[in-house]
Amino acid sequence: MKSGGEAAFPEWQRHFAAAGAPVEVRWWDDATVDPAAVRYVLVWDPEPGRLARLPKLEVIFGSGAGVDFITADPDLPKHIPLVRMATPGAAQRMGEYVTWAVLSLLQDARRMTLAQALPCWDYFERDATARETTVGIMGLGHMGAAAARMLQGIGFPVIGWSRTRKDLPGVESFAGAVEMGAFLARADILVCLLPATPETRGILARPLLDRMKPGAALVNAGRGSHQRIEDILAALDSRKLAAAVLDVFEQEPLPADHPAWTHPRLTITPHVGSLPPRSERAAHVARMIALHERGETLPNLYDHERGY
Amino acid sequence: MKSGGEAAFPEWQRHFAAAGAPVEVRWWDDATVDPAAVRYVLVWDPEPGRLARLPKLEVIFGSGAGVDFITADPDLPKHIPLVRMATPGAAQRMGEYVTWAVLSLLQDARRMTLAQALPCWDYFERDATARETTVGIMGLGHMGAAAARMLQGIGFPVIGWSRTRKDLPGVESFAGAVEMGAFLARADILVCLLPATPETRGILARPLLDRMKPGAALVNAGRGSHQRIEDILAALDSRKLAAAVLDVFEQEPLPADHPAWTHPRLTITPHVGSLPPRSERAAHVARMIALHERGETLPNLYDHERGY
Repeated sequence: MKSGGEAAFPEWQRHFAAAGAPVEVRWWDDATVDPAAVRYVLVWDPEPGRLARLPKLEVIFGSGAGVDFITADPDLPKHIPLVRMATPGAAQRMGEYVTWAVLSLLQDARRMTLAQALPCWDYFERDATARETTVGIMGLGHMGAAAARMLQGIGFPVIGWSRTRKDLPGVESFAGAVEMGAFLARADILVCLLPATPETRGILARPLLDRMKPGAALVNAGRGSHQRIEDILAALDSRKLAAAVLDVFEQEPLPADHPAWTHPRLTITPHVGSLPPRSERAAHVARMIALHERGETLPNLYDHERGY
Repeated sequence: MKSGGEAAFPEWQRHFAAAGAPVEVRWWDDATVDPAAVRYVLVWDPEPGRLARLPKLEVIFGSGAGVDFITADPDLPKHIPLVRMATPGAAQRMGEYVTWAVLSLLQDARRMTLAQALPCWDYFERDATARETTVGIMGLGHMGAAAARMLQGIGFPVIGWSRTRKDLPGVESFAGAVEMGAFLARADILVCLLPATPETRGILARPLLDRMKPGAALVNAGRGSHQRIEDILAALDSRKLAAAVLDVFEQEPLPADHPAWTHPRLTITPHVGSLPPRSERAAHVARMIALHERGETLPNLYDHERGY
């Protein structure tokens, strides 16, 4: 396995033992491991070509919700099932993160944060409540659906955009490039939860930002590859974007000298959106291995055709 | 009227005009106003004795949800209806604020804020989701009920404590001093939305903090008079309290040299919890005046017996 760096490996081992997984867990770069003995891998960003050199590999488990660092491997053995880390907890966590980010934008939490740092008692009124603030969610998979439900419970009108039309209770659904303009014209706060595919790469860039409502706000909890951070900073500076919360970046960790860190209307969080703790992920993988060994088809398989 | 200082008066006048209120709006310290011509007042903190010198006063409107600065007047004419600012928007806003504060505690937003300020990419895992985190709300009036509904929609189990037992869907209700211990033993995040009464004064102090679950967190969006800030800081330092979000203080604005501003696990917001914008409050008062002039009894009257 390869996830979280070698320092995290003993913790993973403990969690797999606690989960009663009937497997021996070994580190990715352990030279004593016979490649022909490896039946399962749990990986985040395997070096290209490495997976193809495991002749008895049965299942590839991604250690996060997205598997783009795995599918980037040109030699990826596509006939081997690739399972996304879609634990029930991951959708719950993402919903919580998105709800927090949207409420932070609604209440201008970044302004309050900067005021506390000064310190300054910076009382201000806000006009809109959730009821007057439409949230537009791009990507309506299990995570987008969880976020939509939570936001609706607070009173936000929620609309959604995805590749194909979706049927979620109370969520007006827009589909495909042709309906993107109508969707963007309605969203006061735009939330990106899209999967990382060639089509969604760089979608949060100037052309889209230009079509958003003036003064709208943005949350990206999808992937860093969705955004052009320079375009987002420029849109913030021109007040086209009122504010943004970004959890993902093209380069992670975000370099310490990046101008994004200090922007007064940009909140940065360190890719904490949906990742369940390792204990929960290890238990989930143990359950999936048990299913696989009973000959069942695994859920949340990556579809190479669709790209997620 | 007296609310928001004289600088805010022209704005209030505009909002009352826009609301079509059939009254002449004058500033509290306008020496040309005949006391016998004053039929309504809109006040936050009138000087003691002043209201008693308005012989034709028909209704006192509080400009916030709490009227404790009005009832503190020993000469308050108690036979005159005193109306709390309970706009529908106020409960919505308070629910949004509390939900934001609770999610901020769940996700340790203060830690992320401090990391951004450094800047430092401080990735960390959190164990509990909302489903494993019980929120205990003290005070189950229209604001507490709104907060409870929103939090339940995210998955938080919600329990409540109040003077008398309440019947809210899915909210286990604890009542009175005798059930306080059982309530505190269950709450992972305690939210104070109590009215300011002699009984609730200083309730968020050492005796209560000592009975909370070790490592629980606190939100005070009620009144500054509910808390002893020194006790809260001590509980944070001893890790009895993991973190807190405070919107109200005994002295507001909180003095710039107060140690609370810089505590690494304390989030301070400038009393923004529930206050609707002045436009909404002026429109609400205009509606109440119209009701009163039709001879109807006004809703949200202060009860001098009960204390809220």
